[in-house]
Amino acid sequence: MGSVSNLQPWEEKAGWARARRDASLAKVKPKLDGVPDADNLPLCSQDLPKAFLTPRETEITEKYTITKLLSLLRERQVTVEEVTRAFLRRAALAQAATNCLTELLWDEAIERARHLDSLLEPRGALFGLPISTKEHHGMVGKNVFTSASFVAWVDKEHGSNLLYDTFWKEGCVFFARTTQPQTIMHLETESNIYGRTVNPYNRELTSGGSSGGESALIGMRGSILGVGGDIGGSVRCPAAHVGIYGFKPSIKRVGTTGFRTPGAGKETISGCPGPMTVDRDGLELFMMVALSARPWRVEPSLTPKEWTPYKFTRPPKIAVQWWDGVVQPHPPMTRALREVADACRKAGMEVVDWDCEGLDHQKGWDILSALYWPDGGKEVLGLIAESGEPILPLTKFIIHEQPTVKELTQHELWALCVKRDEYRARYAQAWSKTGNDGNREVDVILCPPSFGAATPHGQSRYWGYTAHWNLLDYPAAVFPVTKVDPSLDAKDVDYVPKNGQDKFVYDMYSPERFSNAPVSLQVVGRRQEDEKVLAALVEIERAMGRA
Amino acid sequence: MGSVSNLQPWEEKAGWARARRDASLAKVKPKLDGVPDADNLPLCSQDLPKAFLTPRETEITEKYTITKLLSLLRERQVTVEEVTRAFLRRAALAQAATNCLTELLWDEAIERARHLDSLLEPRGALFGLPISTKEHHGMVGKNVFTSASFVAWVDKEHGSNLLYDTFWKEGCVFFARTTQPQTIMHLETESNIYGRTVNPYNRELTSGGSSGGESALIGMRGSILGVGGDIGGSVRCPAAHVGIYGFKPSIKRVGTTGFRTPGAGKETISGCPGPMTVDRDGLELFMMVALSARPWRVEPSLTPKEWTPYKFTRPPKIAVQWWDGVVQPHPPMTRALREVADACRKAGMEVVDWDCEGLDHQKGWDILSALYWPDGGKEVLGLIAESGEPILPLTKFIIHEQPTVKELTQHELWALCVKRDEYRARYAQAWSKTGNDGNREVDVILCPPSFGAATPHGQSRYWGYTAHWNLLDYPAAVFPVTKVDPSLDAKDVDYVPKNGQDKFVYDMYSPERFSNAPVSLQVVGRRQEDEKVLAALVEIERAMGRA
Repeated sequence: MGSVSNLQPWEEKAGWARARRDASLAKVKPKLDGVPDADNLPLCSQDLPKAFLTPRETEITEKYTITKLLSLLRERQVTVEEVTRAFLRRAALAQAATNCLTELLWDEAIERARHLDSLLEPRGALFGLPISTKEHHGMVGKNVFTSASFVAWVDKEHGSNLLYDTFWKEGCVFFARTTQPQTIMHLETESNIYGRTVNPYNRELTSGGSSGGESALIGMRGSILGVGGDIGGSVRCPAAHVGIYGFKPSIKRVGTTGFRTPGAGKETISGCPGPMTVDRDGLELFMMVALSARPWRVEPSLTPKEWTPYKFTRPPKIAVQWWDGVVQPHPPMTRALREVADACRKAGMEVVDWDCEGLDHQKGWDILSALYWPDGGKEVLGLIAESGEPILPLTKFIIHEQPTVKELTQHELWALCVKRDEYRARYAQAWSKTGNDGNREVDVILCPPSFGAATPHGQSRYWGYTAHWNLLDYPAAVFPVTKVDPSLDAKDVDYVPKNGQDKFVYDMYSPERFSNAPVSLQVVGRRQEDEKVLAALVEIERAMGRA
Repeated sequence: MGSVSNLQPWEEKAGWARARRDASLAKVKPKLDGVPDADNLPLCSQDLPKAFLTPRETEITEKYTITKLLSLLRERQVTVEEVTRAFLRRAALAQAATNCLTELLWDEAIERARHLDSLLEPRGALFGLPISTKEHHGMVGKNVFTSASFVAWVDKEHGSNLLYDTFWKEGCVFFARTTQPQTIMHLETESNIYGRTVNPYNRELTSGGSSGGESALIGMRGSILGVGGDIGGSVRCPAAHVGIYGFKPSIKRVGTTGFRTPGAGKETISGCPGPMTVDRDGLELFMMVALSARPWRVEPSLTPKEWTPYKFTRPPKIAVQWWDGVVQPHPPMTRALREVADACRKAGMEVVDWDCEGLDHQKGWDILSALYWPDGGKEVLGLIAESGEPILPLTKFIIHEQPTVKELTQHELWALCVKRDEYRARYAQAWSKTGNDGNREVDVILCPPSFGAATPHGQSRYWGYTAHWNLLDYPAAVFPVTKVDPSLDAKDVDYVPKNGQDKFVYDMYSPERFSNAPVSLQVVGRRQEDEKVLAALVEIERAMGRA
């Protein structure tokens, strides 16, 4: 920094951060020779690993579930260092393919791995497991810089957090930090520091956001367990877009003490960290480890409740939300819903429709979009202005283009919170009513995590399918179901869009554009029924013929 | 209303409300003949009931615990109507003695009692139990007016709430509504509508507040179970001042849906309803019934957890807070602490000191007093101005005289909430640390619920001993211990006050002034450990030789 150039000061700062990232990647040994530059990469990155990694690296990073890898590590059938190096190299490849990293923790991870290997006995529930992390959360260790994708913050030191300290104590290896978008409030991942992260199934599509660095990395199996965060879909949308598992707990289960985020102290709507994993068991493992540390003893606003696995004693009752009453999902999403609903029905579950039209999801969005920015966005816009970096289009979308966003007086704030609480109450009561008249109450809602597969860049301009559950503070998990198949997912040429957003989404679709992109679904439970959501996911996947 | 007079319009409105109250009292039959007017009442009201009630009424209202009375009612050894009439008459006497009622529900209660008596089978956990209620909560039924002690609202209809609907379903009889102070934010009970409520042990002392109508009523055994609410001590302070039991749960256990309160939608600091009872078991009964209705299914921000009784398997570890580092308690309070601590020690409990000085309770108050009024008090001052009623001194105290109170911008609000959360975290961590180094962690804190017994009117200007636990959201119960005894509770003439507040409190004390006033203590637990607090109270009272 400080060198004379024609660059704007913000460009110099951003360049400094990229140079730091590049230096961290330059440490990779053996080097990944021959990886094409971005312009010459194939549309889909899924075949790259076997071309650039050793068979042993491929085996380590691909062959095992998280549980199996943990047991191999614990039994010392493989060294932590070998596992760590394999994921470090695969992560570097994922970076070359998708631009998903802000930093590869090469030296730190290998040092940590060697330390763990040197222990007489393996210790900790995550012994030797490589974990990747969303950048703005911070990181254990020294000389940690955490920008949260604000150019203004790239040279600010910011260290660890309560959650990562817990994982660290349980023996994990942090090895890669991943990108998030400007403001951490896009459902894509683009910033002025690191540019755009792309989908490992199709470079022309987004990897989702805001935890889109994680999804691109894990979607390449450059990591098998990552930590994202979700206040509007930021774990679920990116997980869905690359066909991995993601879970947004109820807020105040997993804490945020130590995270670097704008809006500290804002209570209108809260986000929370959540796992993003290659397999379902990783979700529960994350929650179990995070909560067995009893974080509420340090961050006392958290719910004082350890993870309490739920088991259905009879098949769950599933309500299918075919659409949210605002935007019609694309055909592959509707097909995924139909296939899974059919499988559940065949497995003996009661499957009913979840009718949203009386519940006015659009009103929910009007409330939520205002709750995001009770200061009118002043703080984040100020952070952007501080460095002079440009405001990106999806930042404009979520602040300037939402008619509800404005700086509120205290009384306007109170009135908005009353509206929020009334909306939540109405929804809760509607759910309770499903149990009236001798009916069984619905256990979970099965719904889209997005109107479709990953969108082309810049098009993630409808948040309703994920953000609605943040408004309600309902726990929700996403899981992979299928891929877009032009032979099955023709466009409905007769459909007449119901409103402007619906038309925007309808016009976006053509089967070819999304061909082979992952399609995922979402399971949603009532507030604080986190354990039930993951139990329902087990039942649903079993009905789908998965183990 | 609307009659021509020399009164200000607000005085007319207030007069209308008093006339309404008086009309409700005029229904009492047989009349309470010969009760002296306020100027001629004895200092202590405790001997009035046996002078003005029948022996049978005295028996019904005095002889039984809540549990016993419920069992007599359920077994139909006594009719609901007889019980109801006895409490109605005793409540009317309490009103004459202490000015504690806004309304006696004579017709409604008797109609309800007759209905319950007419049922073939008794039904509900509260079958036939008379319950008194703080006025601003509202009331079941028709033509319900709820002013929350604002003159501007005296003619506003406002009906029931979720909690009272629950109690109603469980078969209770609502029979009396009780006073609260202007703004519901004094630790005394005075309003421009109903005037001042006085202590049933000493008319020159306050009954506390803001649920001071309840405490005066229950302190006269004009009710045995009442509903108060607490955001700074409003259940515990008045309960302590009349020697009854009171419990402030963690917030979001018992809901507030349907209450009439200023500050709806304000999230900085929250209040909650709580029981005020003549015996300890009433506290748990209240919580059990309130939560067995699973109110979170209607008010989804509530903690989805039924009441889960806690049982100590070894004697609890008690930390005694001898003072809060700001204001030294009066001698009878210190004696009460010493007596109970000694009893606990003798019963085999580990008793240690709770050292507050490093925890800076004054800083806690500076945060809390700002959290109460993020709008600078504009809303309630506006409500007062709307009718033209005068601002009472203790309203001025809690708004104008707190240097921290001002209308905040959103960013100032966020910064304040960050401070609050840091303070809470620091306190939680201090508590956790008591379990370090092989020590057992402290189970509960035993502390004063006030710097002393009930204060002379207008002197309740130090909230620290109750409000601190609201700031922290720790559950807390108060229980009666002793009475001020000039022969034991001499003033410490050598004491040198540490600061202005300490001097104010010190100067207030003389044993004679408080002679025979009840002295109570408080048991405080960690956030959400409500059940443990009541279990500890059982152990502590057992150590004191109570059943």
